[in-house]
Parts: sequence; structure tokens; C-alpha cells
Amino acid sequence: MNWLTGSTTEILTALKAEVKLAQEDNQEIEEQVRQIIQQVIQNGDKALKNYSKKFDQVELKDLFISKETIDLGYKRVEDEVIKALEAAKENIVSYHQKQKQHDFMDTEKPGVLRGQLVLPLARVGVYVPGGTAAYPSSVLMNVLPAKIAGVEEIIMVTPPSVDGIPDVILAAAKIAGVDKIFQVGGAQSIAALAYGTETVPKVDKIVGPGNIYVATAKKQVFGTVGIDMIAGPSEIGIIADETANPAYIAADLLSQAEHDTLARAILVTDSNQLAERVEKEIYRQLETLPRKEIAKQAIENHGMIIIASTVAAMFTIMNEIAPEHLEVQLLDPISYLHEIKNAGSIFLGDYASEPVGDYFSGTNHVLPTSGTAKFYSPLGVYDFVKYSQVTYYTKEALAQAKDAIALLARKEGLEAHARAVEYRFK
Amino acid sequence: MNWLTGSTTEILTALKAEVKLAQEDNQEIEEQVRQIIQQVIQNGDKALKNYSKKFDQVELKDLFISKETIDLGYKRVEDEVIKALEAAKENIVSYHQKQKQHDFMDTEKPGVLRGQLVLPLARVGVYVPGGTAAYPSSVLMNVLPAKIAGVEEIIMVTPPSVDGIPDVILAAAKIAGVDKIFQVGGAQSIAALAYGTETVPKVDKIVGPGNIYVATAKKQVFGTVGIDMIAGPSEIGIIADETANPAYIAADLLSQAEHDTLARAILVTDSNQLAERVEKEIYRQLETLPRKEIAKQAIENHGMIIIASTVAAMFTIMNEIAPEHLEVQLLDPISYLHEIKNAGSIFLGDYASEPVGDYFSGTNHVLPTSGTAKFYSPLGVYDFVKYSQVTYYTKEALAQAKDAIALLARKEGLEAHARAVEYRFK
Repeated sequence: MNWLTGSTTEILTALKAEVKLAQEDNQEIEEQVRQIIQQVIQNGDKALKNYSKKFDQVELKDLFISKETIDLGYKRVEDEVIKALEAAKENIVSYHQKQKQHDFMDTEKPGVLRGQLVLPLARVGVYVPGGTAAYPSSVLMNVLPAKIAGVEEIIMVTPPSVDGIPDVILAAAKIAGVDKIFQVGGAQSIAALAYGTETVPKVDKIVGPGNIYVATAKKQVFGTVGIDMIAGPSEIGIIADETANPAYIAADLLSQAEHDTLARAILVTDSNQLAERVEKEIYRQLETLPRKEIAKQAIENHGMIIIASTVAAMFTIMNEIAPEHLEVQLLDPISYLHEIKNAGSIFLGDYASEPVGDYFSGTNHVLPTSGTAKFYSPLGVYDFVKYSQVTYYTKEALAQAKDAIALLARKEGLEAHARAVEYRFK
Repeated sequence: MNWLTGSTTEILTALKAEVKLAQEDNQEIEEQVRQIIQQVIQNGDKALKNYSKKFDQVELKDLFISKETIDLGYKRVEDEVIKALEAAKENIVSYHQKQKQHDFMDTEKPGVLRGQLVLPLARVGVYVPGGTAAYPSSVLMNVLPAKIAGVEEIIMVTPPSVDGIPDVILAAAKIAGVDKIFQVGGAQSIAALAYGTETVPKVDKIVGPGNIYVATAKKQVFGTVGIDMIAGPSEIGIIADETANPAYIAADLLSQAEHDTLARAILVTDSNQLAERVEKEIYRQLETLPRKEIAKQAIENHGMIIIASTVAAMFTIMNEIAPEHLEVQLLDPISYLHEIKNAGSIFLGDYASEPVGDYFSGTNHVLPTSGTAKFYSPLGVYDFVKYSQVTYYTKEALAQAKDAIALLARKEGLEAHARAVEYRFK
């Protein structure tokens, strides 16, 4: 673990410098992705199949996964896993239903109606990574909020493999209610969703995490379609004082660290003693982890223990980090909620261990990473709707407004705007 | 005007083909913008001043506009313009206040608390274009929703000019409550807001329209900071039948066309007769417009009259266009609201002329353009907040959940996730 000590100002300066260093330039990948997208626009399915052969070493006859294949995969999954996925689904649905928004209408002024409609996106694409990062829980997290929003058609794409799509992924897709699955991955799948091909339909928005090629492709097609966010390495921040249990903290830091070698696990505490115990405990627990090598690299390269001088300083520092996951392991944690300005998902107390949110509680686990919780939100129902404004004016109401409108329009040099209103009174 | 006729399917196919053609590749601009951003990261204010000299032909001593300069500008603006801006502000505030969202909390399950906090962004940057596209109304539209959301600090950037920033822009900034103004424009100003310089503070999100350099820069910094949307050329779509007034329709189409030569003005009607009258009326009204040349080019290159066979077909076609502004000039327009799937701002009836929304009604005029209303929303209070999830579990509640969590974690090969939960019960 790297230790960071000093005054709050010194710590904040060090954290900001670290962020600046992390700005990378991926021009080569960007150029490759640009070419892949152009190929898919021009050659459609043929391009997709060529890239699958090249990148995934799979020769595909069909991109589309049939209902029969999905049902077969589902049946092969152990009953208890299906049950756990169904239980998780129930919690995800009950949480996300509370995010549903309502239209509003405003009739404050005589003869004027103003309103806002909440409308679902028509068609959404969900990217599901393949290989060792194929997570059924993520399928639920990406798809269910879209279903609740009222999206008509949900298209899932996932990389092909010689062994086929993992059964548990097919099962999760069936449980979540995916409408169509295509076996295509990487930047080419993002291009297919953004522009459409003979078999893959064009969608309105693409969500779901992926590797650097997927992330770069999402950024490039952003504007042609909507996207959720650019996901970076995952992180956990834990605020704890001397009353906290070092073993719980170490275990939770490691659950983040095992994700990948770039994952960040950060403890902010005002207790030197706790910090030392946590560090010792991490190395003790590490020994028996199957993903020991990954977790160890993450801890040594990106793990951080920050010693703050006061409770207030702990929160100031954590707000600058703006962690994806934030655990508050203080006594009476709810009394500190108002101190938190930036965090994707907040876990309070000794028993809200972060994996509870990954798998079960129903809050979303697709979260803003790498400090982007300063401006991004967890994936939610709001990501799958858009708003439309509605305005109605009577002639009398427009008569009241017309001089101000014409004046401002002319001030901006837009005479036709002024006349459009004045024509109504000729 | 270009006429588009045929079956609904033929019309939809033609519209989709048009969208595909419009996909451009701006590699050269992207490369220039990339270099500008790198320069600003490396050289800060010095780079900003160099670019101002090069692109705006202005040698700047100070980037910061003092409060005295703003107050002086405000005082030089005619009283009636100030009054009109204040009236517009009042309507914008009263509309956008209805967009404010509340935290929620869910205690359905014993020992479990789940919730969502709505938190304002801390600092936002607003880009305000210079030159002939300097619109005080846009300052209000971009800044006021951020104020209502509770953003602490709003930074405005706008290109320098030898004549200084226009008085009416300074006045609008003062009325809207901008905290700081810097005279810097183009891609360099976006870089400054995204990364911070000696004088320009780093922000969490950048909003506001700009030219292709500004739009490209926003796309490149997206992920480092949040951005609103990528704005393209503006458009209006009007649905009307034989009961509508051709002069009103023509005037409203022209109010869009005068914006710029790429602006799109589209009439969808089931009445051939109305279409002919509108076309004639457009050329009649065009003659006396100060921005005749711009409007004429827009009408001739991008203006469109589409003849639909039924009322339902009019809406199907318009939903495919997904216009920024949509006017419904039918009798009893409210009865058709449910037919509208994609539109930024909807104007109902004869008197809700589109400029009402640009200047006065209080709905936002920063809207999704070029068909992006399929997935983007008008700028609103929701653009200046983010959500944080909150989870609390008692030991008993975690005991209920732990087996499902451990099972799913192990199924995904994430042993440390399973152990983090199980540690609580050792």
C-alpha cells in the first residue's frame, strides 16, 4: 500500500496531480477504432464476421442467437444460481421502480400551458463483455432499468467464442428480458449498434462496460447515438476510524482489488493504528485468494492509505477522490451523509459490504469510476428516458408576450423570429 | 423547398438514407483540436493568450472580466431589454423549478435501507459563442437551470473581441447569476475548463453551444468532465393539415431558416393544397427578410415538404425526423400528444409559435438537434445534478442475503467478493 500523509491541502494537491498524470493519449487505438467503424458502416455484417475471425478467432455463420439456444443455456444453469439471479432481479426492480419519473404540467399563467413529458427510448443496445469478465449480474444491472423505463426493444451484444456464449450469461439475459442477442464484440459491435447492419438493428443508446476498444468506440459514436458513460478502472474508498473492524475493511478493499490490476482500493482514516492493522490484514488475507496476483498488483500499485487529521478532513479528501464505491465505517454513519458530495454508491456501517451492492441489494453496480462521480450518476431508469417540453399559448397569452419576444429577437438580429410572432396579429 | 412524396415506407427509407449520408469525418479538425488541448494542458494561460492572438486577433492582458466591466456593460443596455430579459428569467425559473427532483428512501425490507440522493455539481462551465451568434437568451437558458440545481460556481467563457464582450451578454450573465467570466473562446476555452489553468478553474461539466471546434473539443474532453450534448444544425418540424394558416407556418419555418444555411425547416402535411400555399408564402415572406440570403439557402438546400397520406403517417414520419422543435398545427392539438415519440420541444396550436420558446415561455431553448431527440433531452435542471445511491444493512439483513451473494460472486470467479461478506460472520 502507498501511504499518503500530510496536511489536508498537501493531500488534496497530491491527489489532483495524480489525476493529471493519468490523462492518456490513445491515438493509435482511436485510429484503429475509426477504421473499424468505417468498415462496419460500409460492409455491415460481412465486416462484423471478418472482425470476429480476426479478433475472436471464431468463424460465424449466424450473428443472431436463437431463442432455442438461449433456452438451452438457461436450462443448463444450476437451479440455485437461477434462484439467486431471480432474487437479485426482484431487488433491482423494486429499487429502480422508485426512479420512475412523472410528466408534469404547469398552468400558472392564464392561457399558457407548459409541461414536460417523460418518454422511453425506443431501442437500446447493451454491451456484455466476454471471457473472464462475463458477469451475469451486469446483464441484470444494464437491462432491468431499461425495461422499467419502458424501452420497447433491448438488443444485447457479446463477443463470440468457440465455446459459445456462457450459459449463465444467456440465462441472465432471459431473466432480465433481453429481446435479441447478437454474438459480436469489440468496437465492431458498437459500430453495428450505432449505424445498424443487415441483421443488427440501429439503436438509440448504447450502455454497458467494455475494454479500451469498446470504450473508444462508444466515445466515437457518441452523438450519433447516446451512450452511458466512459468506464475506467473500478475503485473503492473506505472512510473509517479506530472503531472499525480492520478485517472487514481489508476484505472489502481486496474485493475491489481482485477485479483487475488497475483497480484502486483506498482507505481514508484518522487512525494510524487502524491503518497499520488494515495493511497487515490485507497481506494476511491476500495469501489465500485465488486471484492473489491480480489483487496484489492492484494493492501495491494503486492501493492507498491516507491519514487525515480530522473527521471533516476525511470527507473533504474523499470528496476529491469521488469514489465509485464509498464505504463509511464510522459509528452512526447516517449522521455523516450530508458530508458526502461525490460518490457513486454509498455503503453505511459494518454490514453494508460493497459486494452487497454488486450482487444483491438492488442498487445499480454500473457506477461512475475514476473520479467521474463528480458529474456522472449510477446507471438508472433516467438513462433510458428522455424528456420533451410541451407549450401551448392562447392568442390572448401570446398578445401579452409578443412585444418582449419581438424585442429580444431583434436585439439578437433575428428579424424572422420577431415577425413569426407578429404575423399572428396582422 | 424539396418535396418528398410516396408511401410512408418510401418516405421513411428516404429519411434514413439522408441521415447516413450526413455522417461526416472531421479528422483534420479533430487533430487540430487535440493539439490545442495538449497545448493548454502544458502551457495554461500562456497557450490561451497565444490562441486568442492567433484565432481572435486580440492581444489579451487579462482573461478575467472584472465585476466593474460587467456592471458597466449591464448599465449600457436599454432598460426595456433588461426588463424583457428579467421577464424571460422569471418564466425560465418558474418552469425549471418544476424539474427539481427529491431524494428517495426505501425501507421495504427489514433491516435494509436503500436510497438515492440528488446532489448538485460543484462547478459548471458555460460556453457562450461570440460574434453574430452571441445570444443573451442562451446565457439565461444555460445558466439558470444550473443555478436552480444548486451549482455552487458557474464559470462563463466567451471569445474575446477587440470591441470587448457585447454589453447585452454581460447583462444577461449578471441577470442569470454567472459567478466568473473569462474571455477565451474556441477549443482552447473548452480545454481550459476541462483541465484548469492558472486562472481558469477546472469544472465538472461544460455546457453551451459552439462551432465545430468547440463541439469537437467537447467530445474530446468528454469523460474528463461531463458535457451536455453535441449540437448540430438547428431544425423545426411542423405538422399541419388543411385547417392551418399557411402564413403562420411559413413564418415559423423561416424563423428557423434564418439561423444558418444548414438549418432545416420541414413541413409534414396531408394536404397538398396547404403545402403549395406554404411554399408560395415562404418565398413571399423571404423577400423582405434582412437575413434573406441565409434563410433562402437553408430553405432551398435543407427545407422539406413531406406529403403524408394520413394523420397517423404524419406522426410516424415526424417521429423518425425527431425534430428539435415540433409544431402541431392541427385542430385540437392536445389530442395528438400521445402520438409524439421524439421531439425536443413541442408547440401546440396556432399561437405557440416557436420563438415563444426561444425567448419567453420559460421552457429551455437548448435542445437536441439533428434527430438526437430520439435519445437526448432539452437542457434542464437534471443536467446539473448527479445521483448517489445509499445502502445500509443490519447484520441480520446481511445474514439473509449472504448465501446468494457468495454464490453469485463465486459463479463469477470473484472469491474475494464472497469472502468479504462471509468475514462478517466468522
